[in-house]
Amino acid sequence: MNDTASLNLAKQLIAQASVTPDDKNCQQILAERLKNIGFAIEEMHFGNTKNIWARRGGSAPVLCFAGHTDVVPAGPAELWHSPPFEPTEREGRLFGRGAADMKTSIACFVTACERFVAANPDHAGSIALLITSDEEGDAFDGTTKVVDALKARGERIDYCIVGEPTAVNVLGDTIKNGRRGSLSGNLTVKGKQGHIAYPHLAVNPVHTFAPALAELAATEWDAGNEYFPPTGFQISNINGGTGATNVIPGTLNVKFNFRFSTESTEEGLKQRVHAVLDKHGVDYSLEWACSGQPFLTEAGKLTDTARRAIAEVCGVEAGLSTSGGTSDGRFIKAVAAELIELGPSNATIHQINENVLLEDIPKLSAVYERMMADLLHSESA
Amino acid sequence: MNDTASLNLAKQLIAQASVTPDDKNCQQILAERLKNIGFAIEEMHFGNTKNIWARRGGSAPVLCFAGHTDVVPAGPAELWHSPPFEPTEREGRLFGRGAADMKTSIACFVTACERFVAANPDHAGSIALLITSDEEGDAFDGTTKVVDALKARGERIDYCIVGEPTAVNVLGDTIKNGRRGSLSGNLTVKGKQGHIAYPHLAVNPVHTFAPALAELAATEWDAGNEYFPPTGFQISNINGGTGATNVIPGTLNVKFNFRFSTESTEEGLKQRVHAVLDKHGVDYSLEWACSGQPFLTEAGKLTDTARRAIAEVCGVEAGLSTSGGTSDGRFIKAVAAELIELGPSNATIHQINENVLLEDIPKLSAVYERMMADLLHSESA
Repeated sequence: MNDTASLNLAKQLIAQASVTPDDKNCQQILAERLKNIGFAIEEMHFGNTKNIWARRGGSAPVLCFAGHTDVVPAGPAELWHSPPFEPTEREGRLFGRGAADMKTSIACFVTACERFVAANPDHAGSIALLITSDEEGDAFDGTTKVVDALKARGERIDYCIVGEPTAVNVLGDTIKNGRRGSLSGNLTVKGKQGHIAYPHLAVNPVHTFAPALAELAATEWDAGNEYFPPTGFQISNINGGTGATNVIPGTLNVKFNFRFSTESTEEGLKQRVHAVLDKHGVDYSLEWACSGQPFLTEAGKLTDTARRAIAEVCGVEAGLSTSGGTSDGRFIKAVAAELIELGPSNATIHQINENVLLEDIPKLSAVYERMMADLLHSESA
Repeated sequence: MNDTASLNLAKQLIAQASVTPDDKNCQQILAERLKNIGFAIEEMHFGNTKNIWARRGGSAPVLCFAGHTDVVPAGPAELWHSPPFEPTEREGRLFGRGAADMKTSIACFVTACERFVAANPDHAGSIALLITSDEEGDAFDGTTKVVDALKARGERIDYCIVGEPTAVNVLGDTIKNGRRGSLSGNLTVKGKQGHIAYPHLAVNPVHTFAPALAELAATEWDAGNEYFPPTGFQISNINGGTGATNVIPGTLNVKFNFRFSTESTEEGLKQRVHAVLDKHGVDYSLEWACSGQPFLTEAGKLTDTARRAIAEVCGVEAGLSTSGGTSDGRFIKAVAAELIELGPSNATIHQINENVLLEDIPKLSAVYERMMADLLHSESA
């Protein structure tokens, strides 16, 4: 495949040291390219966060690409074999911060648009891009705010491709069609401090919590389903005690987290934890924080289209997965009927010497283009 | 009762600022008084610790008083109503550091000896005093070393009175006839650190320990006995976690302590803890430290004699107790057939404005004298 356009645009974006939430000039570069092929560009800046919503066409179905121009910090520059913000080709790879997460996939989608629009100036439906600059930061003024704005004016997405790096071994091997939810608890078990020689005058919170802890650690919260592994409960921190070895502690602090499937709900998990604590007579206070609801796109038109494009371009049979952490997909799902994540290899993301295979770049762009062709063909064409 | 001698000697001792392990001149003062009434004085100094072994008589039975001349620090002097090392009579009490713990009981026993010897110059058996100056410190070069020396030369004690403050409400209400043992464990549970979203790649030590913790906290180690409450297990400190809420901790540290009765043994408790941990497949390392074996003097001649003396002098029915922390009794029991602790009120020990009731001083001395008379009377007399 001869596609220097994608490689060149990827390099142009990597050369922008857009450490979150600073976009540098990435969105400007993208906006100009998209304007040239007939996209309407809408800047939606909130706080320090730059976002653009670009759309070509006014009718359904709407195929949207979602991505972020911000990157995580480079880390110690001296550990990089080439400067992190000087895109460098070496050993068949393109090196640079953001090469995999996720400037290359943005470049590939934009060039796919250019080729597709050139061949199909009157394509059916609409193509859109939702680009933010704070996915790697607190994600407060980025995608979620744009989604709120789209929702408020009734704008819907039919098919959304989030360009997060998803390939595990080879390009196209993995499509993410959902993500687990994340629910955290900060538990304080109350006891009564006292001398260890006089336990009848004290209440040891470690002891009152012990049977509840054993039950929480042993509970099967759900069995997962076709798309999700079982919901998991993990304690990240447990701390009780004064340091002195002759004092029964007055309180115990426990921090825990659920990664939960669509078989459980935030409310259901909360209720079950409270029930276990209450059953064992634990005296406690508990603060909850839910940083993401689980979402799922069941196998259907979007996943089928992606798998077909991957099979044709890469010769690979793509699997569906819901593993890993959170992404902006959790926000976009509110306005998108079907949503997947599909991008390059995630092997080196957030690491020193982040890179993508050079040969994957034209392939990824071709996969995106073929999906456009499939999803936005004119019935009458 | 007219007994200014006990009060005066108590004051003389309190005026010595003998903060552990410094004896100041206490043992010198005591040695001179005892020499005057026919005691042989043996200095047994080890390291910085002064000890004396004083004995009058060469035959059995041996009645020994054990005590310490060192005191805990006074704390902020400005909080005392009178200077801590200036013995002061006020509101029917004698104030000063060491008034209760335990210079008054030493003074009372010495004056009891003086009266008893004056009346019974040829008493049966022997009277002895084992006085140390590091009971409040690390207890390394004090009573334990003297006991080793006595043991090495085959010297035995038949009846031992440790002058620790034991009265709870009124003088004579409590005789301690034993103490629980103390066994501590420092447990490290080994896991494998990892990201909280990928628990299958990590091993959470909080979770692997949870069922073992529940079992340890729920175990009845023994039921105690006539003299001891059930053996108790308490966790003083539990700490695991990196502080980050998205990381499964690699290790968990747990510090715990047993206060154990004579129904359990150090070895038995250790084995049972290891069995629980092993049963639940916990990967761990565990360091043990035993700071005192339990000891017990069953109700018998010594306790009967003490109770009779208390009833006659104080009009109080004394109870037997094994509660509280450790004392030098744990060491002396190795060479003493029967051992009790009997002294003044423990209400203010180690506190600001430590004191004893003035009216208790002659009573305590009279109790000791009456016990001497009972235990060392000549059968032929």
